[in-house]
Formats: sequence, C-alpha cells, structure tokens
Amino acid sequence: MDATGFRRLWDEIAGVGRAESGGYLRFSWSESDLALRGWFDAQAAARGLRTETDRNGNRYAWWDAGTGPAVLTGSHFDAVPHGGAYDGPLGIVAAFLAVDELRAEGFEPARPIVIGAFTEEEGGRFGVPCLGTRLMAGVVDPDRARALTDPGGTTLADAMRAAGADPDALGPDPERLASIAAFVELHVEQGRNLDAPVGVASAIWPHGRWRMTFTGAADHAGTTRLPDRRDPMLTFAFAVLAARKEARRAGGLATVGRVEAVPNATNAIASQVTAWLDSRAPDEAVLAEILGGVTAKVAERAERDGTRFAIAPESETPIVEFDASLRDRLAALLGGVPVLPTGAGHDAGVLAAHVPTAMLFVRNPTGVSHAPGEGASDEDCAAGVDALAAVLRDLAC
Amino acid sequence: MDATGFRRLWDEIAGVGRAESGGYLRFSWSESDLALRGWFDAQAAARGLRTETDRNGNRYAWWDAGTGPAVLTGSHFDAVPHGGAYDGPLGIVAAFLAVDELRAEGFEPARPIVIGAFTEEEGGRFGVPCLGTRLMAGVVDPDRARALTDPGGTTLADAMRAAGADPDALGPDPERLASIAAFVELHVEQGRNLDAPVGVASAIWPHGRWRMTFTGAADHAGTTRLPDRRDPMLTFAFAVLAARKEARRAGGLATVGRVEAVPNATNAIASQVTAWLDSRAPDEAVLAEILGGVTAKVAERAERDGTRFAIAPESETPIVEFDASLRDRLAALLGGVPVLPTGAGHDAGVLAAHVPTAMLFVRNPTGVSHAPGEGASDEDCAAGVDALAAVLRDLAC
Repeated sequence: MDATGFRRLWDEIAGVGRAESGGYLRFSWSESDLALRGWFDAQAAARGLRTETDRNGNRYAWWDAGTGPAVLTGSHFDAVPHGGAYDGPLGIVAAFLAVDELRAEGFEPARPIVIGAFTEEEGGRFGVPCLGTRLMAGVVDPDRARALTDPGGTTLADAMRAAGADPDALGPDPERLASIAAFVELHVEQGRNLDAPVGVASAIWPHGRWRMTFTGAADHAGTTRLPDRRDPMLTFAFAVLAARKEARRAGGLATVGRVEAVPNATNAIASQVTAWLDSRAPDEAVLAEILGGVTAKVAERAERDGTRFAIAPESETPIVEFDASLRDRLAALLGGVPVLPTGAGHDAGVLAAHVPTAMLFVRNPTGVSHAPGEGASDEDCAAGVDALAAVLRDLAC
Repeated sequence: MDATGFRRLWDEIAGVGRAESGGYLRFSWSESDLALRGWFDAQAAARGLRTETDRNGNRYAWWDAGTGPAVLTGSHFDAVPHGGAYDGPLGIVAAFLAVDELRAEGFEPARPIVIGAFTEEEGGRFGVPCLGTRLMAGVVDPDRARALTDPGGTTLADAMRAAGADPDALGPDPERLASIAAFVELHVEQGRNLDAPVGVASAIWPHGRWRMTFTGAADHAGTTRLPDRRDPMLTFAFAVLAARKEARRAGGLATVGRVEAVPNATNAIASQVTAWLDSRAPDEAVLAEILGGVTAKVAERAERDGTRFAIAPESETPIVEFDASLRDRLAALLGGVPVLPTGAGHDAGVLAAHVPTAMLFVRNPTGVSHAPGEGASDEDCAAGVDALAAVLRDLAC
C-alpha cells in the first residue's frame, strides 16, 4: 500500500489521549481507551467484521470465513505514561489495512482472520504487563488482578465496572486459546536494531526486575562526620554505575530508572534508598552473569559504606523463542528480511507458550520507544502492512 | 543539679508528638506544637514568669528583674520529621531549670532574663529554617513567609490563623532585637565532636544547598542499546560519589539526601533526575573547593553520558563567627571547656548578626541527630543546666 493510505487511517487516532508532552495518556479502561475501543468498533463495522469482547476485556473483530481455528493478529492500544504513538496501535491499524488489502485482491480466507486489541499490555495503569493475555493464559490469578490498583487507588475491578465491563468474568480462557491457529503481532521496533523496513522476531530476551534495598542510618547532613556515616545513597549510586558496567561487559542491558529515598530531605542523610534494577540479555546465562556481578560488587561496597544491601526478584521472565518453523517461513516469504531478537515484553511473548506465534517489526529510525520521540516513517509502516497482508494470506489459505 | 531533677522535667514533654518510629512529629503551629507552647506557659506560670508572644510567633517567658536590655536564652520546640527529642527542646527545658538554680541560690539579676521558644527553626513544615528569627531580623520577606506552604498545601498564614495567631503581624522586629543584651542558646551537639559534658561554640560552618539537574532522554529500558542511551541516572550516581570524594579530600561535608527521578518507572530510562547537594565546610574557601570540584567532575561525566548537568544554589549561608570576647569569657568561666564549631544552622546563627551571641553544646555520645537515635545522658544534660546557670549569672549580674 502507499504511505498516504497508511497516514489517512493513522491520523484518525493520533489525537486520542495525546498530552501536552507530545506523549500519550492511554491507560486501560480510561476515557481515551474507551474512545479507541469505539474507533476499533467503527473500523470493524465499516468492514463488516463481527466484534466481540472476551472474558478478560480483550476486544476482537472477526472476519468470519472458512473453517477451523483462526489466524489472530493485532496488538494493544494502551501506552506507558507519556509513551509514544506506535507501540501497540501500529499493530491494530496495520491489521485493518492488511484486511483491506486482502479484500481488494479478492482473497478468500480458508479460515477466520481475527484482529485483537489486548488490554493493559504495558502495565501502565495497574502494574502488571500483558495483563489481558496473561489472564487468558491463566498465569495471573483473577482475584489478584481484580484487586490491582492504579496510582490513584482505583482497583481494576472498579475501573472495569465504571467502563461497563464485568470484572467477575476475568479468568483463564482455554477455549479462546484453542480457537487460535496462529498469532502474528506487528510492532514498531524499539532499539534501532533493524536496518530494513520490516523484520521478523527470533526471540524475546529473558528479563527480570529486582528490588534493591539499601539501608543505612538517618543523620544530620551538617554535623555527622564522614567516617561516622552509614549513607545508603552512596551504596545506591555505586550500584547504578556497577549495573551499567556489568551489563556492558556481559553484553546485555541494565537500567535503574526508579528510586525512592527516605526521608528524602536535603539536610538529612537518607536512612534507606530503594531502587529497581531492570536487566535483560540475549540468553539466561548472560542475565545471570549480570545479576551475579551486580550483587557481588554492591555487597562489597555496602560493607565499606557500613550499609545493608538486599536484592530480591520482583519478576523474572525466561527467554521466549518464537516458533522456529513459523519464523523461518515468514522470513522467507518476505524475501529474506532480517531476523532479530527484542528486549521488550509483548503479548506475543505470552501467547507463544500456547499457540504458534510470530512477530513482525517495523523499522524505528531513532530507536526511541516509550517516549514521545518514538516513530516510524509512513513508508515503512505501509511496508509493514504489506508484509502483514502477505503473512495473513499465507497462514489463512 | 542532679540527673534525676533534669529527667523529671524532661519526661513531661517526652511523649508530645512522638511517632511510632521513636522520632517526633512536632511541626510548627501543629497540635503538638500548641501542646508544647501550653507546657511552656505552664512552666512560666509555675515560676511567676511573664509570658509574651512577639509579632513573629516566637514565645517568651520573662523574669522581670533589674534594668536595661535582657539576657535571652532558649531554643525551639519544632523537629525535622521523625527527628530526635533533644535538638531544640533541650535548650528550653535547660533554661527553666537554670532559672530554678539561680533562684535557689538567691541570685538577683541586674537585668531581665528571658526564655525564648522560637518558631519553625528546622524549616520542617514550611521549608525555611530559622523562620521565626529570620523574620525578626528582617531577612525573610513577610509576604513570602505568609505564602509558604507545607507538604499538604496549607500556607503559613492559614496554619497561624488556625492556631489563633495573627499572620498579618509578621515582619521585622528591631525593637525586640534592641531589647536583647546577649543571647545564649544551649543545644545538643550533633556530630560526636565533643568529648566533654559541655562545650562552647566557636562558629557555624558556612553551608549551602545546591539543586542539581541531570537531563537525558526517556527511553525503553528493554530495547535501547547502551551506546544510544542518554541516561541521567548514571550522571547523578557519579555526582553522589564525586561529592563525597571531594568533601573528604577538602576536609568538609557533602551529602545528597534527596532525589527525584522522572518518570521514575522501573522499565524506563529516566528523562530527568533532580537531586540536592548539601555541603558545609570549616571555611568558605574549602566550601568553594568542594563545589568547584563537584561541578567540574560531574560536567565532564555528563559529557561522556550524553546528558546535561546544571547546578544552581538554593541557599548559601556564610560563616557565622560567634562573638569572640563572649565565647572566650564563657569558656574560661566554665573552666576551660572545649571550644568547637558546628556544621548545623541555628537561631543563634541568625541572631549573632544583631546581638552578642554564644552557644553551649551538650555532649551527644552517638553523634546521631535529626533521627530517633539522637541523645545525651541525663548527667551531661544536668551539667549543661549548671553551665547555662553559670553563664546567665555572669551575664545578668
């Protein structure tokens, strides 16, 4: 398809939930989410697609055709706070345009094709990423999910009810999983790792989040002699630099993006600093090497600082290898496009444990993601639509 | 006096504003502050002292005697959040007990002796330390003071009105300053720098607070390649360690106790980190050396990290040298006790620019201050009362 055609549909949602920062506030079950669901329904209606919501709040548009389990494509509408436009919505917009292409050429699917819009993929409101697909897969307890709260204290259950959805229905959905023959998620690439318009995913790196707690002793910043101090801010600062160094040495990623100091006062030595380490690597051995290096070096430094250091996992996700035959088939079908891993989690990573799953990436010239600068050219997005149409044709014939 | 006598009066206020942490919530104009003011009035009444509040909310108990300007002693009731029991209240309790001693021995002052309880010395509620004495000295604009807000958004003006005080009266009070012949503040020592029951202050170290801003680029923690990152958390971490190193090298103090990251999310590289540097030193040259070292080294690191670093003063307080003749006279009077500087600010530091001022310190065995562990033995506190009585006798005869 041409870039103009992509841009025309893309622009229909460009203003929904856009903040002054240029980024998006598109939290699940919020007004902007409901506006996007309304847009989804209108697109389905315009194409004669049947809409449906599953028990976990994921929305679908069915091209009922042929027989047997369906080919599922799609992605998510929700964004991290002030995130970019492409992460998620590109996969949904591209799906509608790919259906248009298949219809324009008179393609008659041998099995249903269904477009999905999954709920709370980012965990940007309730803290658990891929919540919609994890509930479907039965790896998140529905009671726990209902009780999750957003930063304002609203539970998921209350947010769903306010949006007219039924939180009591949340739960595993094996029938839904059984109705899917294959899932293909198209997504903007997120790290300047793709130097072609379109690529195919090989794997999602193993990753984890660890909570690091640095405990010292609160004291007066103006009077406590340096040797008498037990200042956890020093140990924390060392940990930030050590994590970067270990990741670089081992060939993975490590980030400290969140920190909380107590009492967090200018003229007081902190009594405690809590920070979160996010680390990802090409394989689990490298991830373990980074974590081991950080743990050992920071423990040593804490000894010197007279502080206590503790590190505990908050989540650990093993490597996801996408279905190898599907991956190779798609890469060949698309003319030998690059095959590359990603460090980001996706609904495709959750569903890959249950159905043959693949991902298509669209080039991101800046590599920026989860921030307003995230982008892709209209030409590359149009190439992504063409690739997705080719893949759906291949899988549904 | 004996330790038991000190402990008896001390215990009367030990429970006021005490939190579960063991520290104190004694914010100015709060209920616990009003309870302490009520106790102050009761102590004054029990001794036949005349009470009075000045236009800036500082409370006084007058031993009207003799003629001419008065000898002022006292300190403050307010505490930093979850601070210790001694910082402030010790100087007020000791003042009442010193009056008792002078009376017991039949001393007849040649001039009035007045006990002061100053308001918002810690800046723990409204952010400006020594607010009561700074208003008196005319170095804080009363309009600015009235508009100061606490963390809950209540202005000083509203807090005063709610406590029955009149914020419209706030302002410079030259007549009050002219009525004081000398001021002596007794205070717990705060850094394990005093190895005798009692000492005399030489000076308050020059100190300052600088706001440090580290700006980078928000990005996805799972996908952005290390060389593509502009992560301000790295530059911040370097600054924390550099500040400590520069302070140690130069012979001063530097502390980073407060930090705020944006967006402060586990899976996002921060776009900005703001942190506050508190630094103090024996003289202004050393302070300038620390600041210069930190600024140069962090700027160099920011270059490497691809981030921007800015540092701007939020407050800079020059050295306070206490009245030399008064200091030497008191040290001799007390039998050659140690003379030592402090890194902490005090109302005595503000009033020293206007009236001959001295400080007495009571030994703090742990050196802990602004935290529940702050302390002094009953014996040392009683020795402090004796020293204060001797000083008042000397100044008021």
